[in-house]
Amino acid sequence: MRIEAALFDVFGTVVDWRRGVAKAVRPVLEAEGIALAPEALADAWRAEYEPGMAPIRDGARGYVALDLLHRENLDRALARLGLGARIDRPTREGMTAAWERLPAWPDAVPGIAAMRAERIVAPCSNGSTRLMVRLARFAGLSWDCVLGAEIARSYKPDPAVYLASAAALGLAPQQVAMVAAHNADLAAARALGFRTAFVPRPEEHGAGQRTDLAPEGEWDWVAPDLEALAAEMGR
Amino acid sequence: MRIEAALFDVFGTVVDWRRGVAKAVRPVLEAEGIALAPEALADAWRAEYEPGMAPIRDGARGYVALDLLHRENLDRALARLGLGARIDRPTREGMTAAWERLPAWPDAVPGIAAMRAERIVAPCSNGSTRLMVRLARFAGLSWDCVLGAEIARSYKPDPAVYLASAAALGLAPQQVAMVAAHNADLAAARALGFRTAFVPRPEEHGAGQRTDLAPEGEWDWVAPDLEALAAEMGR
Repeated sequence: MRIEAALFDVFGTVVDWRRGVAKAVRPVLEAEGIALAPEALADAWRAEYEPGMAPIRDGARGYVALDLLHRENLDRALARLGLGARIDRPTREGMTAAWERLPAWPDAVPGIAAMRAERIVAPCSNGSTRLMVRLARFAGLSWDCVLGAEIARSYKPDPAVYLASAAALGLAPQQVAMVAAHNADLAAARALGFRTAFVPRPEEHGAGQRTDLAPEGEWDWVAPDLEALAAEMGR
Repeated sequence: MRIEAALFDVFGTVVDWRRGVAKAVRPVLEAEGIALAPEALADAWRAEYEPGMAPIRDGARGYVALDLLHRENLDRALARLGLGARIDRPTREGMTAAWERLPAWPDAVPGIAAMRAERIVAPCSNGSTRLMVRLARFAGLSWDCVLGAEIARSYKPDPAVYLASAAALGLAPQQVAMVAAHNADLAAARALGFRTAFVPRPEEHGAGQRTDLAPEGEWDWVAPDLEALAAEMGR
């Protein structure tokens, strides 16, 4: 069956969130005289990502957009780092916009453009529509539309997110490839009938990364980057 | 307040639905030996557009996508034209895809691209996401995302459609311009606080058009086409 659409995980797969967030928080840390590597704050912030979404995925909390979770997660990360009193509220609001200004991995813009010439391309991210739109404009990405968490009002790997995204395109999962640098994301999609493509991002978490260095499932495609994946998928 | 996004009505404003539908149905009429101008079928089909949406807008029927309404509306149009028995079901399915293959007005692609260089652009149409995505790819349009009826699960001019579209971008209505060739669409948006831009399409309904030939409200911008509008709106 022809692949009519490619859906992309975004944070880590398409954009380098760690480098982007570190760059955004560096001047804040310097201005406040806080002796902490910006990457350490980026890591601490991202470590709150899964715990922040869990209550929504589990139904204990109604859907709120990732923008708000990012803001809340920053408070928790700063508290854990013992920096709870060092950065004021307006500064934290500004820091949260860092997630809208993340650099694309070098192959992402040409790779997604090549894919788009053959089939529909859209993010299937946990980011909100507003976040995905602003991030795409910053990073120079062009999508056909924005799918993912917001249209399902839940968070991956809840099946509803993948299924709502395919349904919005009027496609069966078998006609759609999920593209991600994370094996768990692909496993969730594959269980629903989606085709799967793995692109490793061995520096997503910095030099010492130990997770998602290699495919851990029988994914339909494995490619070193998104340009190679576009070529491999073909028409 | 700066205009951060421009939302576009699509059928009539961005694409020439009448010419596109007429082109798609012409070979069907010829093959069946039906002596009817293709434009007359296009007009009859479009005449069922408002009546088809009304029960959903009024709450008498749950939301279904415009793709299904287009299919139902074709049955009603053919029945009204006395052609109920002349065109079989598979042919009607194929005809309904005509709405995914409509030509853009000549100024639409460059005009929307120029607008996109300055601000977010998205359809705020009654068309579904799948329909808007396919239509954009056919017509060569590039949007930042697809907003409109589907995210609100209702139809314009229900305020929910405009408000959900601005909310999805994290913007207040005052930061958003609604662009349309239809005064009623702009009146609905303006009542909610949106800025408004009128672009006349005097041939949308063919040579004898009598409606929407001129602005009928104090719209913020009035321009002869979308390229001129982009220039007029500026940064």
